Amino acid sequence: MEQKHISSAFDNELSDLREKILAMGGKVERMIASSIKSLVERDTSLAELTIAKDHEVNADEVAIDERCLDILALRQPTAKDLRFITLALKIVTDLERIGDKCASIAKQVRTLNAEPSFTLNIDVKIPYMAQWAAMMVKESLDAFVNHDTDLAGKVCKDDAIMNELNDKFQLELLTYMKEYPDAIPRALKISYISKSLERISDHATNIAEIVIFMIKGKDVRHTASLCNNCAG
Amino acid sequence: MEQKHISSAFDNELSDLREKILAMGGKVERMIASSIKSLVERDTSLAELTIAKDHEVNADEVAIDERCLDILALRQPTAKDLRFITLALKIVTDLERIGDKCASIAKQVRTLNAEPSFTLNIDVKIPYMAQWAAMMVKESLDAFVNHDTDLAGKVCKDDAIMNELNDKFQLELLTYMKEYPDAIPRALKISYISKSLERISDHATNIAEIVIFMIKGKDVRHTASLCNNCAG
Repeated sequence: MEQKHISSAFDNELSDLREKILAMGGKVERMIASSIKSLVERDTSLAELTIAKDHEVNADEVAIDERCLDILALRQPTAKDLRFITLALKIVTDLERIGDKCASIAKQVRTLNAEPSFTLNIDVKIPYMAQWAAMMVKESLDAFVNHDTDLAGKVCKDDAIMNELNDKFQLELLTYMKEYPDAIPRALKISYISKSLERISDHATNIAEIVIFMIKGKDVRHTASLCNNCAG
Repeated sequence: MEQKHISSAFDNELSDLREKILAMGGKVERMIASSIKSLVERDTSLAELTIAKDHEVNADEVAIDERCLDILALRQPTAKDLRFITLALKIVTDLERIGDKCASIAKQVRTLNAEPSFTLNIDVKIPYMAQWAAMMVKESLDAFVNHDTDLAGKVCKDDAIMNELNDKFQLELLTYMKEYPDAIPRALKISYISKSLERISDHATNIAEIVIFMIKGKDVRHTASLCNNCAG
């Protein structure tokens, strides 16, 4: 009976940890959306809000790390539970860095909004990339919660699409810069934003790889089968 | 006696884990140097070697992760040892991503070396930045091994210098691109290399923050005192 009581308390702790990670994930998904909305709608106040939100995400990482350490010390979990907690430590690092990237995008937006608007058709392509990135983050966390390696595999494959979207857009920007050298400083900021969205998809891919590692109990990270497009 | 035997075996395991992390660190330091040497000396074979080395670093991360999980499961460490192992899990992620960045630099070098050489004075500034980045990686790992929070604090402060070096160099590149629009594609690759070195210094700073966390037992990450320059 006592054993059952401990086990149930432990289950609650794991479930609570899972909820905390999902809440942090939801927060960074919203940061992706708001950083890009602040660009398209030239809304500097929203950019400022996104920048401020990064502190919350940093605090979330610290709190979840401490929670993981507490559980490891008190419960000394083994097998699947040990794998879950130690890899949660890795996942939150990626989520925190997605938050960093959103704040960096919002900082670029803040300076862009103080300059003349950009004539290249950014209000379609950049939001489209942002939707992909946010979807990949969501799906990587869904895969984490539902122990769904198929979905995690899909995220790894979607990373190739994001790389292609970014590559094509960078080429367009390059042509634009050659034609309008005066617009180079603004074009470089847009280029940075596009690359940041691509980096966010890399983080989602890292999370997906970690999920596969956690479930399959062996490491498929950095191998060719799922993730040809993960490196650098 | 039996207890002492176990304790000594455990100490050896921890010491072996530390050595493995240092060896991985040494590998990525050499990758930083070789990626930049391949740029300055236009040595495409060396760039290829650097790209190939990334697979080794990826394998190192996987092996160290598995080692950490084994130790956690078998030894169920507490307090300082628990903190050491769980945070080793985080440190190797940063080392692996430094390896990724070096491989990405070498890929840019490979295409740059197939084009006419670049007239802007890159053979002084880029190697200087690379030396800073490599030094920061080394010092962050020295801080880890020697439990040296002062050195870890120095790494966090050095990050500001790297950011400044990169910002100044990006401005120079911007002026250059305006003047020579035909050189924009090559200039953008150099710009990417400079930013990658700056990103490597961010990873060293992340390691330094984790070391401080490990030693002080409370989280100073993402706080203003040491690391104003860590975000995004």
